[in-house]
Amino acid sequence: MAERLNQIANHATASKEAGIPHPLDPLSVFELTTVVSIVRDTFKGHSISFNTVTLHEPDKSAFKFWKETGSKIPDRKAYFIVLDDSLSTGFFEGVVNITTKSIEECNQTSGACPIITTDDLRTIEETIRNDPKVIKQCELSGVPKSEMHKVYCDPWTIGYDERFGTSKRLQQALMYYRSDEDDSQYSHPLDFCPIVDSTKKEVVAIDIPSVRRPVSKHKHANFNLKDVGPLREVKPIAVTQPQGVNFSMDGRYIEWQNFKFHIGFNYREGLVLSDIFYNDKGTPRSIFYRLSLAEMVVPYGEPSFPHQRKHAFDLGEYGAGNMTNPLSLGCDCKGVIHYLDFDFVERDGNVATVKNAVCIHEEDDGVLFKHSDFRDDFQTTIVTRGIRLVISHIFTAANYEYMVYYIFHMDGTIQLEIKLTGILNTYICDEDDDLKGYGTQVYPKVNAHNHQHLFCLRINPEIDGPGNSFAVVDGAQSTAPVGSADNFYGNAFYAARTVPKTTGEAQYGYDGPRCRTYDMFNPNRIHPYSKKPATYKLVSREVPMLLPKPGSLVWKRAGFARNAIHVTPYVDRQFYPAGNHVPQTSGEPSRGLPEWIGDGKAGVENTDIVVWHTFGITHFPAPEDFPIMPAEPINLLLRPRNFFLKNPALDVPASFNVTTSDVKANKAGSHAMKDSTSALAFGKTSGEAAMVGSCCSSNKTSAAEPVSLGCGCSCNSKKNGCATACKCSPGQCCCA
Amino acid sequence: MAERLNQIANHATASKEAGIPHPLDPLSVFELTTVVSIVRDTFKGHSISFNTVTLHEPDKSAFKFWKETGSKIPDRKAYFIVLDDSLSTGFFEGVVNITTKSIEECNQTSGACPIITTDDLRTIEETIRNDPKVIKQCELSGVPKSEMHKVYCDPWTIGYDERFGTSKRLQQALMYYRSDEDDSQYSHPLDFCPIVDSTKKEVVAIDIPSVRRPVSKHKHANFNLKDVGPLREVKPIAVTQPQGVNFSMDGRYIEWQNFKFHIGFNYREGLVLSDIFYNDKGTPRSIFYRLSLAEMVVPYGEPSFPHQRKHAFDLGEYGAGNMTNPLSLGCDCKGVIHYLDFDFVERDGNVATVKNAVCIHEEDDGVLFKHSDFRDDFQTTIVTRGIRLVISHIFTAANYEYMVYYIFHMDGTIQLEIKLTGILNTYICDEDDDLKGYGTQVYPKVNAHNHQHLFCLRINPEIDGPGNSFAVVDGAQSTAPVGSADNFYGNAFYAARTVPKTTGEAQYGYDGPRCRTYDMFNPNRIHPYSKKPATYKLVSREVPMLLPKPGSLVWKRAGFARNAIHVTPYVDRQFYPAGNHVPQTSGEPSRGLPEWIGDGKAGVENTDIVVWHTFGITHFPAPEDFPIMPAEPINLLLRPRNFFLKNPALDVPASFNVTTSDVKANKAGSHAMKDSTSALAFGKTSGEAAMVGSCCSSNKTSAAEPVSLGCGCSCNSKKNGCATACKCSPGQCCCA
Repeated sequence: MAERLNQIANHATASKEAGIPHPLDPLSVFELTTVVSIVRDTFKGHSISFNTVTLHEPDKSAFKFWKETGSKIPDRKAYFIVLDDSLSTGFFEGVVNITTKSIEECNQTSGACPIITTDDLRTIEETIRNDPKVIKQCELSGVPKSEMHKVYCDPWTIGYDERFGTSKRLQQALMYYRSDEDDSQYSHPLDFCPIVDSTKKEVVAIDIPSVRRPVSKHKHANFNLKDVGPLREVKPIAVTQPQGVNFSMDGRYIEWQNFKFHIGFNYREGLVLSDIFYNDKGTPRSIFYRLSLAEMVVPYGEPSFPHQRKHAFDLGEYGAGNMTNPLSLGCDCKGVIHYLDFDFVERDGNVATVKNAVCIHEEDDGVLFKHSDFRDDFQTTIVTRGIRLVISHIFTAANYEYMVYYIFHMDGTIQLEIKLTGILNTYICDEDDDLKGYGTQVYPKVNAHNHQHLFCLRINPEIDGPGNSFAVVDGAQSTAPVGSADNFYGNAFYAARTVPKTTGEAQYGYDGPRCRTYDMFNPNRIHPYSKKPATYKLVSREVPMLLPKPGSLVWKRAGFARNAIHVTPYVDRQFYPAGNHVPQTSGEPSRGLPEWIGDGKAGVENTDIVVWHTFGITHFPAPEDFPIMPAEPINLLLRPRNFFLKNPALDVPASFNVTTSDVKANKAGSHAMKDSTSALAFGKTSGEAAMVGSCCSSNKTSAAEPVSLGCGCSCNSKKNGCATACKCSPGQCCCA
Repeated sequence: MAERLNQIANHATASKEAGIPHPLDPLSVFELTTVVSIVRDTFKGHSISFNTVTLHEPDKSAFKFWKETGSKIPDRKAYFIVLDDSLSTGFFEGVVNITTKSIEECNQTSGACPIITTDDLRTIEETIRNDPKVIKQCELSGVPKSEMHKVYCDPWTIGYDERFGTSKRLQQALMYYRSDEDDSQYSHPLDFCPIVDSTKKEVVAIDIPSVRRPVSKHKHANFNLKDVGPLREVKPIAVTQPQGVNFSMDGRYIEWQNFKFHIGFNYREGLVLSDIFYNDKGTPRSIFYRLSLAEMVVPYGEPSFPHQRKHAFDLGEYGAGNMTNPLSLGCDCKGVIHYLDFDFVERDGNVATVKNAVCIHEEDDGVLFKHSDFRDDFQTTIVTRGIRLVISHIFTAANYEYMVYYIFHMDGTIQLEIKLTGILNTYICDEDDDLKGYGTQVYPKVNAHNHQHLFCLRINPEIDGPGNSFAVVDGAQSTAPVGSADNFYGNAFYAARTVPKTTGEAQYGYDGPRCRTYDMFNPNRIHPYSKKPATYKLVSREVPMLLPKPGSLVWKRAGFARNAIHVTPYVDRQFYPAGNHVPQTSGEPSRGLPEWIGDGKAGVENTDIVVWHTFGITHFPAPEDFPIMPAEPINLLLRPRNFFLKNPALDVPASFNVTTSDVKANKAGSHAMKDSTSALAFGKTSGEAAMVGSCCSSNKTSAAEPVSLGCGCSCNSKKNGCATACKCSPGQCCCA
């Protein structure tokens, strides 16, 4: 990781400035350095390399005890994985207690492969470029030996290959050619696939197709500024907050508009939001204990060998944190931004930092609520705008970018938006090939295979306290026939709600026409009006079924994706639904969630539950996605229902409020939230239209005084004498 | 309409300034005045009132002829409906030719009721307040005779009531009580429902429930600023465009980022976008001929009488244009705004204007595309931001607000977003009533019934020319079993595509797990790479089934809602899928779309087609929706697939682009789109973090010079010597 920005903080400064870390805080530079030192001591005499060093989160009971009593703060601990050159296979994993500066656990693990790190990725290209068998295949493809520096590969997890199992740590090298180092290689795939031993750095096999296709001679499909010709003119938009932002940070806790929660981040899940509370008129009410993307899988739909191996678990096999981008102001994030860094350990034990890994900022959220009364032509009105809080990061998984946004709204809704961009995975084809519907030629000789992007959202709810249940809710027609006493006109419908009792029952698909939603609720907290339990409702509308069939390799390895919903009782350390160590698992047995569900008898009612929601998209590529893909959005919402006494955002200052009595008394109305920067696009150039919407709320006394634009009030009543001119009286709004 | 802003433009000025109206332009004040005059002459001696005067759109063939040849501009025409006091039932409707100043058609229509206008709404409250039978029911409810001025009603379309049919024009008065004129009445419904003759202005019946419930004595659930107590503090966000906007107007045509289209607006559909073209590197390519919301229905799920009557067709029975709000700068619309007015005719023939009916503005659209290369730690990178164009309006249907946004994206996507806000419809209940699952008590004694909001989007595609077809596309598993030769690993999947030939076949529901999408394509325009036809794909994920059952009153009247998709061949004047005159239709026969589909034999392949898409939400109310509802979003996308040769937005100026050769040469990279206003939230107060993300792209020569924030470049490489200090050299970016 030599190129990563390397900042080893001054230890004393870091510990003093930071104070005592919060139990959920990511490990600091100081702590990582301490762990590395302890692990090195433990493995003295061994030649080791660091694979993972990350926060070992406290058990929930310990965290809760400390949070409630202020005593017995959990020790700071780290989980680590190291590779040991003396092991031909397997690795060591364990836990370091940073507080006591001791190793608590250390085990040798066999028959499993640890997460793939960027250090593993880096060496592969060099290995394949120098391998004589690869060089030969390149020659056959039309790439001469002298041009091996123009050969590149995206090193992918091998997935699972029955020839190798977990006997060695392997990657498959998806091969590409660039004529120039600045080319985008994806228009020039090569047709063969070397398999590389990551430990020994040697090619162990090459999968060669029966039909050979030499590398394309077409121009590279590039997208850098120098390649795209004349740029279109785009006038910018500026987003500012002259009075500052509405969020404040206390360590890793953020407070914003009654929300308060901890922003964690780790090598694997990326963002982790914990201890999410809402301050409801002075009473802190819990919502979620922990929220994160726990796993994902991207299965490709081309059945021929070796493409079935393409089904990367980008979180479990690479890590969203490991692949996270350093973000830049005005480019990735616009407006008024606060960044958080991500500290990590490199292969050699060096502690490094990804600067600006997490972006925190606000955005305008449009109209929050509005109502106008038709009785006086909408003069009686209230319109209140919202602001939303966005916490985000971007990670690059070889070709693809995933942009992850957790968005908080003033009405208590929590939204997760994922936008896909970057570059399609591509394979070679001949221009007249029959792709059999499993892929699309997006550029001459470029086949982009069908695939799905399936994410697993891990939700540990704590809706208004412990003791939660789950319900699946569908819009359902009354069973009573049209014309019957109970349904005479045939319009009766209701919310059909099922509350599963066990993990066996708590497995659900998605139903679009019935607008299926999923409730997490507290059966012990009943709303005084509705008599329904305090709930956060998961509204998720991008919920593909897993297209690889039951019994398929992907189905076995990605058990979490078999259903849109699984629910399990909370158990510490059940974080990763495809298993702790995902690379090269066979899926027999299916690790993670299927193991935890087991015989399906565990109870999930009125207890501490974890909801695992699989969502995403099925992607049938098109040329518009190439050579780089415009961002495609995937969204879901977590909405409070029967949680708040009423709309929790009534106290947000309205942009404009005029009551009926105001109208009758010819009063100007209130602008609790003033907007002094909005303006007309075409100013005063078009006669009458120039004054449209303009108003004055200051003490102007003369009609001759120019009226300032953008005061944000509406004047649509003749009562104020408005016509084509402007009339101003002290304190009054007036417009043309 | 006395309170509506009344502006009768100077005729000469209007016609001179406006020039000759475009055939799709809404009728101008001048034209409306002309029509009123002609109609009055035609009905001389009759006592008439104006119900509707609107553009009578030219036949498509006439429009196309003129557009292609420049000759034979279609005459300007108006469609009108007038009520005549001499008719006990029915009305007159016809067409005025404005160009020749003559009546072309004028017919008396019986057995139908015309759209309900705001003039109809206004008179109802006065009628019910003065009716002795209503007064008596109010007394029984606990409202004394002396307080009838505190009794209000929301006049609703009666829907269909078999006692009356279309024999009289009727409304049902949903009754409410306010203790103060500024109260929100919805927490105080009354339990009975008067039916009012809109023509005679008299109560013809009162529907009285068998169990009586007196008006609530609870406090009113209000939301005005004066009622909500202390406001929270919210620091504003400012959105500006110092260099101006990217859209330009040519009459009602707008040009923006290669899109060009006509913005229409009428009394019924509200916004109508027509003649939508994309300038593809100099070649104008058609996409849609016409796009609008053509109808909607809001069926309630409470089966008991008279609640089955609650299923308003807000477009066909009231009109989105008729109910459209005048928008205000900084409140409804934020940023740099261009407005369009809406001119209309009042009951008495007076021409009036809703100022600022349509809002046009741009918003930041986030990251448009991004890719970074892991090989050099993401130093090789491109990140390009997008801007989107928003064309919107808001209409109030008594209690509810519908905010309609047509959003255009730089990647060619057209998005429709509808946000629901305003106030739930409410009915009275006792606090211990069993609502039987058909409603929710959202406040003491307030029952909010279940309902659906179903919208019908009318799409007349013209994808890259005439001759379009439709396809329904599902993600489908290969039929070959796991382990078979064609699907050995079980991962094979493809897009299963069906192209209907007739209107009978072209009726589809929605399938969530299969990620069903709907294609409109031109079979005569095949993409040179993918060999697939030029397509716009409808991606719609909020697609409830119609919950009222087949054979129900709603099912009969709202035939369009029986399926997510219907497709018909284009026929001029087939605009309104529930029929031209919707109020009080019985649904026997089902007007509109079911009539046009008929025997289902008409062809819809490779021809001029119209796609009718029904989408929306099923709403099970909760207290969070009360007393005013935070905006709930509904979205769908129209995405180009195999339409463009490649990503059409490559020429959008990147915020930041560094190539691999730039990195190696230690060059700063390019900022085609500069952002000089983004900033850090917490400035320079926290040591090292202060310089994070800051950079300099000007000719600074000394490290001592302060580095300006927000240049928008990222500097994460040690190669530039960055550490905790800032290093600047002429032209170079540097950060800490």
